Amino acid sequence: MKTVGVAILGLGVVGSGTYKILRDHREFYRKTQGVDLSVESVLEINKQRALDLGIEESKISDNIAEVVSNPNVDIVVEVIGGVEPAKSFVLAALHSGKSVVTSNKELFCKYWYELEAAARRTNAGLYYEASCVGGVPIIRTLIDGLQANVVQSLTGIINGTTNYILTRMSREGSDYKEVLKDAQKLGYAEKDPTADVEGYDAAYKLSILSSLAFHKRVPLENVYREGITNISVKDIEYGKELGYVLKLLAIGKNDGKNSIEVRVHPAFIRKDHPLASVNDSFNAVYLVGDSVGDVMLYGRGAGDFPTGSAIVSDVIYAATHSEVKYATFKNTEEPDKNTKFVTDFRSRYFIRFTAKDKAGVLAKVAGVFAKYNISIIDLIQKGEGIDEIPIILITHETNEFSLRRAIEKIAEIDDVVSVDSTIRVEG
Amino acid sequence: MKTVGVAILGLGVVGSGTYKILRDHREFYRKTQGVDLSVESVLEINKQRALDLGIEESKISDNIAEVVSNPNVDIVVEVIGGVEPAKSFVLAALHSGKSVVTSNKELFCKYWYELEAAARRTNAGLYYEASCVGGVPIIRTLIDGLQANVVQSLTGIINGTTNYILTRMSREGSDYKEVLKDAQKLGYAEKDPTADVEGYDAAYKLSILSSLAFHKRVPLENVYREGITNISVKDIEYGKELGYVLKLLAIGKNDGKNSIEVRVHPAFIRKDHPLASVNDSFNAVYLVGDSVGDVMLYGRGAGDFPTGSAIVSDVIYAATHSEVKYATFKNTEEPDKNTKFVTDFRSRYFIRFTAKDKAGVLAKVAGVFAKYNISIIDLIQKGEGIDEIPIILITHETNEFSLRRAIEKIAEIDDVVSVDSTIRVEG
Repeated sequence: MKTVGVAILGLGVVGSGTYKILRDHREFYRKTQGVDLSVESVLEINKQRALDLGIEESKISDNIAEVVSNPNVDIVVEVIGGVEPAKSFVLAALHSGKSVVTSNKELFCKYWYELEAAARRTNAGLYYEASCVGGVPIIRTLIDGLQANVVQSLTGIINGTTNYILTRMSREGSDYKEVLKDAQKLGYAEKDPTADVEGYDAAYKLSILSSLAFHKRVPLENVYREGITNISVKDIEYGKELGYVLKLLAIGKNDGKNSIEVRVHPAFIRKDHPLASVNDSFNAVYLVGDSVGDVMLYGRGAGDFPTGSAIVSDVIYAATHSEVKYATFKNTEEPDKNTKFVTDFRSRYFIRFTAKDKAGVLAKVAGVFAKYNISIIDLIQKGEGIDEIPIILITHETNEFSLRRAIEKIAEIDDVVSVDSTIRVEG
Repeated sequence: MKTVGVAILGLGVVGSGTYKILRDHREFYRKTQGVDLSVESVLEINKQRALDLGIEESKISDNIAEVVSNPNVDIVVEVIGGVEPAKSFVLAALHSGKSVVTSNKELFCKYWYELEAAARRTNAGLYYEASCVGGVPIIRTLIDGLQANVVQSLTGIINGTTNYILTRMSREGSDYKEVLKDAQKLGYAEKDPTADVEGYDAAYKLSILSSLAFHKRVPLENVYREGITNISVKDIEYGKELGYVLKLLAIGKNDGKNSIEVRVHPAFIRKDHPLASVNDSFNAVYLVGDSVGDVMLYGRGAGDFPTGSAIVSDVIYAATHSEVKYATFKNTEEPDKNTKFVTDFRSRYFIRFTAKDKAGVLAKVAGVFAKYNISIIDLIQKGEGIDEIPIILITHETNEFSLRRAIEKIAEIDDVVSVDSTIRVEG
């Protein structure tokens, strides 16, 4: 039986999970996959952490050069996260001709082209299932399961922290700040939650997933991004009344030619949409392919064992496939000059504003929308006998830029006190 | 660029869909997959059908020997269905060293071992994504996406016809026979609906999926099977009141050692379970892996283009991977003698019976359950002031055989008029 040596760079949550999966399933993989996967080296400064996992002292290193020059190591697993030193370590592994398996979405979405160029030089494999949506095998599916399709769109709930927060806000009627605090206590959100709650994490993943799905390099800079920090529980409750659920969505669209649209922002979806029941820290990606139609993949987007599952599945794939494949598109720093990134995208909108309870306000608001050719589907006026009343409306599909101009004009109307929320409505 | 020749056996619904996908995406696959897929031959008795699709006359054949000896053909797509002549044709292709891509679940679940033995002799590839759950890439996922996991269970809605019928019965409160008739008119059910409504189709797929998931041959004969023909709309409505949705489920369980449980039958699941909102002709498979946790794949389980998507994805995979892989288990006619197929499985149960409205009936019924150590979670007695009242109860988890014995005893109670339904409750 073929023995394949694995090195793990970093024994954090995912690294430890990966090590345990490899250790505890060794016989299982020998039997079912015909390969003996042996952890030959770990790179970890905290030596005790490695010893506590039962790793032999001789296999623990704090020197990347030592790890990548180890002739027993065939596959290097990078689970450090962030750009540096992960990038240098991955490049060192690739230069040595070792295949790399990574869970590093930030590194991957920013420097995929550079890592791929390095991999091509030594014909090394480059695997990144674990970089997107944890244990859900979305990348394998895009590469080897739905490749017959022109993927027309993908819509994902691909950040567990924000989904956990929004689910609890919706379930409990609690405020964002309150739930965030609790999520931090419970380990669902980091001390500095910016990467999650401002949508950066989802944008990293969307950049990778849409590049794969649309066969074009989609740089992070082209992903429109809004987080959930301004979401009020009031919006969630009004949305609920109208039959909607609020999610942080990552949306990619492809016209099948050269136009790509990529955006991460909170959005309402109908409560009977399959994504609407993806709750708590679960993730899902909803795809539409030109032949297959609608497909959804659902599962855990993070965690030691779910992400470890993706890593080890990639390790097995790398260990049992001698052919190496790279991106299906020209993977360069700059995107193809023919690719057009749509910024004036089309959507429906939920708008909440506060107005003085005076005759004629609604007529003025309606007049502004009419001027910008925006039609209104639904309008609810809340409360009576109070001075300032909340008004909620939902528009038909319109262009982002027209909508923004209309909102500016509405804010200028005398009896409009404030425009409180503008939230897209999708699906 | 590599040119790969494809032959299609049978231009029925799926065959025609496959042909159209290959024809219309040829340039797309050249660009994204680096392979030129050319349909070099079709086997079709109805020549006009082939001509109508725009296939050149010289490529139309009614002779399998001619097709498989064509040196331009590398991959043979079998979409005839049924055992013969499909089996002979597939074997002929494999004998000639051509890789085979098939959507034929019946053939595959009954003769996988024989097809694999033939494929191994000539090192031909054998691909069968399209045999299970149409366009949903569940097989690729099991082989190449979740292979790091010991799959503990899979629960699927894997027959579109029955899901369509049950969804409509639930939505409209209509009777089985009525909805079936309409489904036949609309093309969702065949004239002879037996294979679907009696659960054979789902059993074929479960045999294949559980063999793959559990790394053991699971013969069709070991799949317990019940259809939906005895389902009353009353059960669906009572279940709804209790928070349940009725589905035809295909369930596979694996204790990680040698015990396998495989069964297809109607079952109630909680309305907030992700499978509960899989409606109409959509399909889904819910998996639990020891590392990844819960994963669900959702999509169209049938149709020309969805199933064509699976076929063409397999064709691309076959055309772009030179290594051929076979089953991860010993694929012989007889299952491994160590494999134990559980028949006395555990479940909860929904039981509906009719009793005379007399004091003491419930006590007698409860007494029988107590005798068999079955505890009751929920009991509803419907109607008052009528002679014969319906009683619905839901049990805690118990063994199938104990439950059956208890039901027999209950039917014997004097004031019990009839035991109307016994439906498992899962999830």
